[in-house]
Amino acid sequence: MKNSTTREIEHVVLAHGGGGELMARLIRDHLLPPLKNERLAPLTDGAVLPWTAGDLVFTTDSYVVTPLEFPGGDIGRLAVAGTVNDLAVMGAEPVALSLGLILEEGLPLEVLDGILASIAATAAEAGVTIVTGDTKVIERRKKPAAESQTAAPAADGLFINTAGVGRRRPGVNLDIKRIAPGDLILINGTLADHGLTIMSVRNGIEFESALRTDAAPLNGLIGQLLDCGADVKFLRDPTRGGLAGVLADICEATSLSIDVAEDQVPISRTARHAAEMLGLDPLTVANEGKVVAVIAPQHVEQALRALRNHPLGKSAAVIAEVTGAAPPLVELITRVGGRRIIQRPYGEELPRIC
Amino acid sequence: MKNSTTREIEHVVLAHGGGGELMARLIRDHLLPPLKNERLAPLTDGAVLPWTAGDLVFTTDSYVVTPLEFPGGDIGRLAVAGTVNDLAVMGAEPVALSLGLILEEGLPLEVLDGILASIAATAAEAGVTIVTGDTKVIERRKKPAAESQTAAPAADGLFINTAGVGRRRPGVNLDIKRIAPGDLILINGTLADHGLTIMSVRNGIEFESALRTDAAPLNGLIGQLLDCGADVKFLRDPTRGGLAGVLADICEATSLSIDVAEDQVPISRTARHAAEMLGLDPLTVANEGKVVAVIAPQHVEQALRALRNHPLGKSAAVIAEVTGAAPPLVELITRVGGRRIIQRPYGEELPRIC
Repeated sequence: MKNSTTREIEHVVLAHGGGGELMARLIRDHLLPPLKNERLAPLTDGAVLPWTAGDLVFTTDSYVVTPLEFPGGDIGRLAVAGTVNDLAVMGAEPVALSLGLILEEGLPLEVLDGILASIAATAAEAGVTIVTGDTKVIERRKKPAAESQTAAPAADGLFINTAGVGRRRPGVNLDIKRIAPGDLILINGTLADHGLTIMSVRNGIEFESALRTDAAPLNGLIGQLLDCGADVKFLRDPTRGGLAGVLADICEATSLSIDVAEDQVPISRTARHAAEMLGLDPLTVANEGKVVAVIAPQHVEQALRALRNHPLGKSAAVIAEVTGAAPPLVELITRVGGRRIIQRPYGEELPRIC
Repeated sequence: MKNSTTREIEHVVLAHGGGGELMARLIRDHLLPPLKNERLAPLTDGAVLPWTAGDLVFTTDSYVVTPLEFPGGDIGRLAVAGTVNDLAVMGAEPVALSLGLILEEGLPLEVLDGILASIAATAAEAGVTIVTGDTKVIERRKKPAAESQTAAPAADGLFINTAGVGRRRPGVNLDIKRIAPGDLILINGTLADHGLTIMSVRNGIEFESALRTDAAPLNGLIGQLLDCGADVKFLRDPTRGGLAGVLADICEATSLSIDVAEDQVPISRTARHAAEMLGLDPLTVANEGKVVAVIAPQHVEQALRALRNHPLGKSAAVIAEVTGAAPPLVELITRVGGRRIIQRPYGEELPRIC
């Protein structure tokens, strides 16, 4: 049993964000130990990174997923992997991340510690360091009861922003405008695992074969693909909006059509079952460890081998072909040979999925 | 009079964050027009910045100030100026910012438009571009009534993260460890205006001579100071924790003492009056357009001239001296010649001030 003074200090309080002694302690005792590195340690207003000539790639993402923890990952793993992946699909080697935390008053420090450990582990996995950060605290808030269907638990606890800087790999020429009829579209594994995991947890649904998020840093896998000698024309991670969103982007930017082979799209039996129960189309559901790659047709075997040689690409597959058919449409060639138009989802099927 | 369908679309809805068609429209109609530039326009996963050799400085800050708009500025001006200033006090020329928006469902799009315009104007003032961004939407939430004293209005509406990259100026040697007894501490103008403005608005207090935030990008002013030939040893912007926080940092890092001359510290009559009414010590209140500079004594006139030659430094003053007195303390030499110890504020006097 602990007394009330001790208990108060085991949760985030508003004073942790005030720039005073209590904030200094939060940083010293909870944030620095898991993330410690020589650039972060001085706690100045920013980090100095030596940079030889070469293009810099700069990206940012905020993470508001609810719940904070879910099978296979948590908001911390998502925040590191998501920003690393944004750099990687731009053809960059990730160099450093920033970490902006917005904590909600009442967040147990134990939960914060767990998420920081996950951030540190995922950063180590990606070979990237957190070099600068910022912490703010907001008042605890309650949600109106009426929103029970989509609402998260009353205390969200934590929002994270990670920005990232990377060095563009020389010789890489990724440009959506280079896509041409005949190009093939590859994916490194099964679709929809992340979004379906989150929605299953929120709806209290369990499946015999457990669903887990696919969240993972893809810079290693993408590095292997870019190094294999294939002409890689375009890369994108199918997060919010899912595969359908990425294909719609390609169709709009190029005015070309895309035929997706339904029987080639890797979706696990559990995910298919979950999508049916939740009434969701797996093609529009968010992924956090997948990359869509557009490859010149003569290099597709080479590219597929490079992906399958990496642990995160074992189920890689060619799932679609770019065509010159008019008008420009994305179509699913169904198992029975029919055609169904795939559209960009209109709005928010899945709130706060990442 | 507008019908309900039209009205719904004039506010942020959850679907604006879903990665679908509605989000594409939000970006196209509300975010891109004010910020437009050639790097942001392609809307890829990140921005490519050509970089010749030279140290990179990388920083991040989240902004959760409430209310969103206040005399002299808004959360948008704060988000740009704050991150630009973090780069500038590291001795860097700001190059590019990222913009991470977390919108609360129900935020009027008109308010969002106003804040985006302010972001664009402040970025132009600082000579920096927004090159990459991200938008998330969270459910509208209500605060418990019990928190009326410090609580903001029910809908906060908007959190912003800006990360920044800058190029370190060659020849600059800013290092807290270089501070030595005899060094003088300068400030570019009046203290406490930002924090007191926010607290006055929240408490519904008006003053005859209006209080306004001092939020402003300081890269121009700091550039003039660094170019003037003076030995500038250390720079920091006294935001959360105020001047007291910065002086405590110096005292801790150097084990030197600091004597602050109360009658030299520039504080406006209105700010002094507001601080008294609100029961706040101006030395611990946040500033958003101020820089603390530590200068070798033989260069102080030169540095003061450089600051006063800039519109944001007209009231610059020497406010303190570093001494070797033991034990290391920060002390205020009062108007009547007494001494009072200045301590780092413990916690949260001023929640959500920036």
